[in-house]
Amino acid sequence: MSSFEIHPQLQSDCIVLGQFQVSTLLLMNNASVPWFILVPRNDHFAVELTDLAFADQTQVLAEINAVAGFAKAQPYVEKLNIAALGNIVPQLHIHIVGRSTADYCWPKLVWVADTQPGYAVTALQTLRHNVSSLAGFTPVKIT
Amino acid sequence: MSSFEIHPQLQSDCIVLGQFQVSTLLLMNNASVPWFILVPRNDHFAVELTDLAFADQTQVLAEINAVAGFAKAQPYVEKLNIAALGNIVPQLHIHIVGRSTADYCWPKLVWVADTQPGYAVTALQTLRHNVSSLAGFTPVKIT
Repeated sequence: MSSFEIHPQLQSDCIVLGQFQVSTLLLMNNASVPWFILVPRNDHFAVELTDLAFADQTQVLAEINAVAGFAKAQPYVEKLNIAALGNIVPQLHIHIVGRSTADYCWPKLVWVADTQPGYAVTALQTLRHNVSSLAGFTPVKIT
Repeated sequence: MSSFEIHPQLQSDCIVLGQFQVSTLLLMNNASVPWFILVPRNDHFAVELTDLAFADQTQVLAEINAVAGFAKAQPYVEKLNIAALGNIVPQLHIHIVGRSTADYCWPKLVWVADTQPGYAVTALQTLRHNVSSLAGFTPVKIT
């Protein structure tokens, strides 16, 4: 996996939370909605989810379930948007966004809505703490 | 499965192509891009993909792979958009859209782009014929 790197655009937009077995979990730095991104690590530069071996896709699906459950449990979340798009950033990545009918852009899609303020330090610490207990998840060490 | 019905909005927007083991395959009646929708049939009115039992999710993933392979093989398709959104139609449905950098709304998302003309009869016949040979797929009978 040594050649794998997160795309610079995702690095710029997101905060790395940690690692599942196959995917790196990112948090979009948009404090208005709980917006997670799974980036499956792979050496063959997959673009589509369906480019991965089916066994890896199934593991990614399990990781989607873990993150979806976490997102759904966040305050006010009523609906999830789960999507692999990649029209701008070609590296395979899967969005898992917790939506509320009261959020800043409902029912519009977050990808076409205005940029929002990022996380305050304490809110991010709380989120890192809460996500750290997900099954099969290894949080990044914050020093 | 007797209580399962496709949501009226999907019925209005789409053409039923046939059935996979778990999902009904629809074609968005938009001739500008190959835009398929899988609707997992279930008696518990699932809203999220992750509401299904994991075994059913895995089968849906296999069906996504079949449709994604078909969409990717259509002329000019360079990229797929695969998404479960549901902000407008709450019934669980998964979009699989074949995109081209030359299509009518690239790189915008098809969900926020203008409505496009539907399929001509012959183009739809050809597509029905081509999709009918997908593994595990039972096309609707056209009389």
